[in-house]
Amino acid sequence: MRVTALAGGTGAAKLVRGLVASGVADLTVIVNTADDTEVWGLHVSPDLDTITYALAGRLDLERGWGRTDETFRCLETMAALEEPTWFALGDRDLATHLVRTRALRAGRPLSQVTAEIARRLGVRVGLSPMSDDPVRTRIRTPAGWLSFQEYFVREKARVEVLEVAYEGAADARPAPNVLTAIGDADAVVVCPSNPVTSIGPIVAIPPIAGALAATRATVVAVSPIIGGAAVSGPAGQLMAARGLPVSALGVARAYAPWLDALVLDGRDRGLAAELEAAGVRPVVGDILMTDRGSEAALARRVLGAVGVGRAR
Amino acid sequence: MRVTALAGGTGAAKLVRGLVASGVADLTVIVNTADDTEVWGLHVSPDLDTITYALAGRLDLERGWGRTDETFRCLETMAALEEPTWFALGDRDLATHLVRTRALRAGRPLSQVTAEIARRLGVRVGLSPMSDDPVRTRIRTPAGWLSFQEYFVREKARVEVLEVAYEGAADARPAPNVLTAIGDADAVVVCPSNPVTSIGPIVAIPPIAGALAATRATVVAVSPIIGGAAVSGPAGQLMAARGLPVSALGVARAYAPWLDALVLDGRDRGLAAELEAAGVRPVVGDILMTDRGSEAALARRVLGAVGVGRAR
Repeated sequence: MRVTALAGGTGAAKLVRGLVASGVADLTVIVNTADDTEVWGLHVSPDLDTITYALAGRLDLERGWGRTDETFRCLETMAALEEPTWFALGDRDLATHLVRTRALRAGRPLSQVTAEIARRLGVRVGLSPMSDDPVRTRIRTPAGWLSFQEYFVREKARVEVLEVAYEGAADARPAPNVLTAIGDADAVVVCPSNPVTSIGPIVAIPPIAGALAATRATVVAVSPIIGGAAVSGPAGQLMAARGLPVSALGVARAYAPWLDALVLDGRDRGLAAELEAAGVRPVVGDILMTDRGSEAALARRVLGAVGVGRAR
Repeated sequence: MRVTALAGGTGAAKLVRGLVASGVADLTVIVNTADDTEVWGLHVSPDLDTITYALAGRLDLERGWGRTDETFRCLETMAALEEPTWFALGDRDLATHLVRTRALRAGRPLSQVTAEIARRLGVRVGLSPMSDDPVRTRIRTPAGWLSFQEYFVREKARVEVLEVAYEGAADARPAPNVLTAIGDADAVVVCPSNPVTSIGPIVAIPPIAGALAATRATVVAVSPIIGGAAVSGPAGQLMAARGLPVSALGVARAYAPWLDALVLDGRDRGLAAELEAAGVRPVVGDILMTDRGSEAALARRVLGAVGVGRAR
């Protein structure tokens, strides 16, 4: 089975690892880059790195970001040099950002650099940024517009969100193999990532939304919301800011134009009828990934939903 | 007394530390930047960093370069990412290169960035690159032209040197306070650095050579050669390639147009008469700096030679 996944950070990393573990050989992962930021003059792609490190077996599982066996000596020294250090880069992690930044400055597209870094780390899954063009999530707060990392890391998501915008999305071109990967897949898996700031920017690129609507693949999403709250991160606050119910139903609504099935938690089975009424097939099960076993189990549940074909 | 020093790397760092320790309050150090190089996309200024770290009390004395309390995790990871690692940057050292590179890319001149980094590290001595313009030492070998770091670090100076060139020197402008620092000084101290690749590029900038010839300051150099060999590094090989005798006399000859006095080792007292004949006043003494005490003693010897006034 050919599977293409749309991915943000930590939750996506777990499900993608589960897809690999459950035997998907032909897997392409299209990753959000609207969280990308410049730190100390380096181009940092947090979601790409989380997925890459996870597939390379080098993601720090406790932190949920960055590399295993990491130290922070450069960061310490940056603080002594009076540089901002609210966005922490580890000493090993720096190598990735240095390689990426140099290649980008030499004019190479992010998709090429991403594939090259993944290859050098021994990753065999196809990994691609959603676009080689810059798309940036901007968050409007009472104090003004913030970048996603200013909102999420510096302010720890503790500010009121008035508006979310995807700067550059309307004109961004999908990275070279994105449309083919969606069009030629048997299944498109939308990972349990933040619908507003992880999946939102990907599908805000018009040709990508078009490809999702047109593909013959079954499009299955996994809800990142259990009960009325996000499994991790500020998805709830951001969904509310976008006028979406903070529930699996809100997720289905955000993905409505192209979603076939939504895998939602047993605790949310009460929403099944409403989902069906909205044209989305509910698949109820345990969706919390707490270890490698539950990652693979969720991946199998997702793939099981594909066999039934398109809902639309 | 106002003292201006011309400096390369390790030997200069020791003498400059000695000048500070022996009470010179008004000290400006003009540093070679023709060894500057780009590593992993970062602008590295090895001589500036050696002097800065030495004055900040953070130079690794055993290695002779880089910072104390250093680790090399990023370097290790760079090797795993198949990047060249023959030029070693430590994790703490990286902070300096990141700050410098970002400022240079933002259009700030190296002299400003250098002063800013020195200030943040608590250095109170005036530090300046010789020029804000790029000057690069190039070494011609039987296999072709190499950058200085390719010759010195990658090839470990084990290749034949046919020619040395200072790319960009003829058109480079001295950094903003360089000419004033030379013109207004009571003494100009030429540190015991490589005459060809450390001091050579500084004085290859025509207005700097002009200022040295015109200053009313006494110009005193310390020989980096004892007997027929350099105290450290490839000065001997490079002097020979330039047709200079590998001796204190060769040093005096390289600096002839503007040198007043040369401090040379007791073992070289036999050269004193020849130096006098060449118009350079010999100052004989112990010049090997093996600890803080001998650094300060050499500094006092150098300053003692100044009182006597210009030889020219």
